[in-house]
Amino acid sequence: MGISDGSGYTPPMVNKPELAGVDPEFAQRVLDSFERQGLMKHLGARIAQLHPGRVEIRAPYRSELTQQHNYFHAGVSGAIADSACGYAAYTLMPADSSVLTVEYKINLLAPAAGEELIARAHVVRSGKTLKICAADVYVRSGDAETHCATMLATIMCLPGKNDRLG
Amino acid sequence: MGISDGSGYTPPMVNKPELAGVDPEFAQRVLDSFERQGLMKHLGARIAQLHPGRVEIRAPYRSELTQQHNYFHAGVSGAIADSACGYAAYTLMPADSSVLTVEYKINLLAPAAGEELIARAHVVRSGKTLKICAADVYVRSGDAETHCATMLATIMCLPGKNDRLG
Amino acid sequence: MGISDGSGYTPPMVNKPELAGVDPEFAQRVLDSFERQGLMKHLGARIAQLHPGRVEIRAPYRSELTQQHNYFHAGVSGAIADSACGYAAYTLMPADSSVLTVEYKINLLAPAAGEELIARAHVVRSGKTLKICAADVYVRSGDAETHCATMLATIMCLPGKNDRLG
Amino acid sequence: MGISDGSGYTPPMVNKPELAGVDPEFAQRVLDSFERQGLMKHLGARIAQLHPGRVEIRAPYRSELTQQHNYFHAGVSGAIADSACGYAAYTLMPADSSVLTVEYKINLLAPAAGEELIARAHVVRSGKTLKICAADVYVRSGDAETHCATMLATIMCLPGKNDRLG
Repeated sequence: MGISDGSGYTPPMVNKPELAGVDPEFAQRVLDSFERQGLMKHLGARIAQLHPGRVEIRAPYRSELTQQHNYFHAGVSGAIADSACGYAAYTLMPADSSVLTVEYKINLLAPAAGEELIARAHVVRSGKTLKICAADVYVRSGDAETHCATMLATIMCLPGKNDRLG
Repeated sequence: MGISDGSGYTPPMVNKPELAGVDPEFAQRVLDSFERQGLMKHLGARIAQLHPGRVEIRAPYRSELTQQHNYFHAGVSGAIADSACGYAAYTLMPADSSVLTVEYKINLLAPAAGEELIARAHVVRSGKTLKICAADVYVRSGDAETHCATMLATIMCLPGKNDRLG
Repeated sequence: MGISDGSGYTPPMVNKPELAGVDPEFAQRVLDSFERQGLMKHLGARIAQLHPGRVEIRAPYRSELTQQHNYFHAGVSGAIADSACGYAAYTLMPADSSVLTVEYKINLLAPAAGEELIARAHVVRSGKTLKICAADVYVRSGDAETHCATMLATIMCLPGKNDRLG
Repeated sequence: MGISDGSGYTPPMVNKPELAGVDPEFAQRVLDSFERQGLMKHLGARIAQLHPGRVEIRAPYRSELTQQHNYFHAGVSGAIADSACGYAAYTLMPADSSVLTVEYKINLLAPAAGEELIARAHVVRSGKTLKICAADVYVRSGDAETHCATMLATIMCLPGKNDRLG
């Protein structure tokens, strides 16, 4: 279950009880919502992996995404990791619900110097109202990935509020 | 000391001992660095207030900055608040230094629905190596501002490392 | 409305719409809950101020509360600031509800060297389910207070779950 | 290299370049410092595992450690996870240095109901001045462990400042 862009990354096996009742339309629901995020398009970001409880978002390097030393700006790491956490949580929410970021905290670990920024998020704890997610951000140069940021996020489910309607 | 865009916001008085030795070229140094941040330009963000220990950054609404419900994306709040914190800290650093975000945490308080996003940051504690900053993010609709996010950030000074050279 | 121990600190005026419907028994409800926290007693902590949306907790210095340099341990700052945030939020919750800390983040600003540790918390945003709170921690030496920590916390209301029953 | 209390938990293998130059006296240095933390003794906490870049701290249940529902108080999770992060970082610092928590963020994942609280910390990124650490907190009931909290922390090395002298 899920989609993959064939980029070679295999997410860890997930086998948790809360995945039993996953909405079968979760992937389409997430992709529709992502498509409506103007910022993700503006950053050139795309969903590369999408599984119950796990999402990977990638953004190729462009000078429009830089801080003052021409590395990826921490704000880009924050934005794609936040979206990855939000959508990882959203895969586990009911069909008729909307998703909201309550808060996140990010530590920058190394300069994000490379060709592509990759945020990999997973749900750490899936409560009914709140889902706690973690994301790690890597910057890729050729075949090598450097761990450049790590995030903890609290994501909220708004039940009975269709995500298309805002 | 400092610049203001005349938008009418008066930052609180600042009168702290650590401001005594502020580099007189702080404003030019911050503006130069900000100018080199490709992301800030890409988001349409500008520095609207710049004083020792205090920075305000504003970004007007565009569909390129949205989440799925057409509000400002939390990633934009995070990015401009992070830059505001970083530059608020950088105003208090020596001329020959570079600035780095160690980490930040942001709470989203209300939907960021409006015409302009405004991040106001100030230095809470100015240590030699680390400066702890807080930022509040407001979204403006006409004359009304709504408090939509709040951030705590840890910013690092890299002494003897010119910010132009990366 | 509220209680004060006469220690001379006057909390800022609070005049927000969400305070209109405060449960008139809020103070007794908070004190009852605090009384049941074994940890607060073990740390020698007490509620010194209690108003709708605002709580102050104080703990006098004891060698049982120290880190390796004989200052107050960061864990004590975290514990009393967390309780202050939780109870500041709880003052605004309905009578028949329980309170839960979702997460908090604390920055340590200065060594907590002094005779008494004081955590002052207030509600920044009072949603129905989640209340976002901020706390500042001060350490007092004689009449002087030093700002030694600052916290942002997310607190959850569990409606229809009496706090006495757990 | 390291100590273990034989409680059966085997920490993951660590094989990172930064471990090459570990101070051979790291274990004694950490234990000495821990011994001087009045709060850890007051909470009944002890170091159960101690390896380069990894520390486990355990505290048995006592009514002195509770919140209002008789579970472990979040402040205890925060305090032992903070100490575990700080000492995990301290194992990788030079002999003549002191350790300081800059900040931490903790998410509470589940009620900490059980007989023993266990905080397991490791260094995620070991910079010269700052070490970023993660900790997971588990509560044990019989043989079963429940993941009840997760922390990200930023720890600072103060070189040339002996930890015994404060």
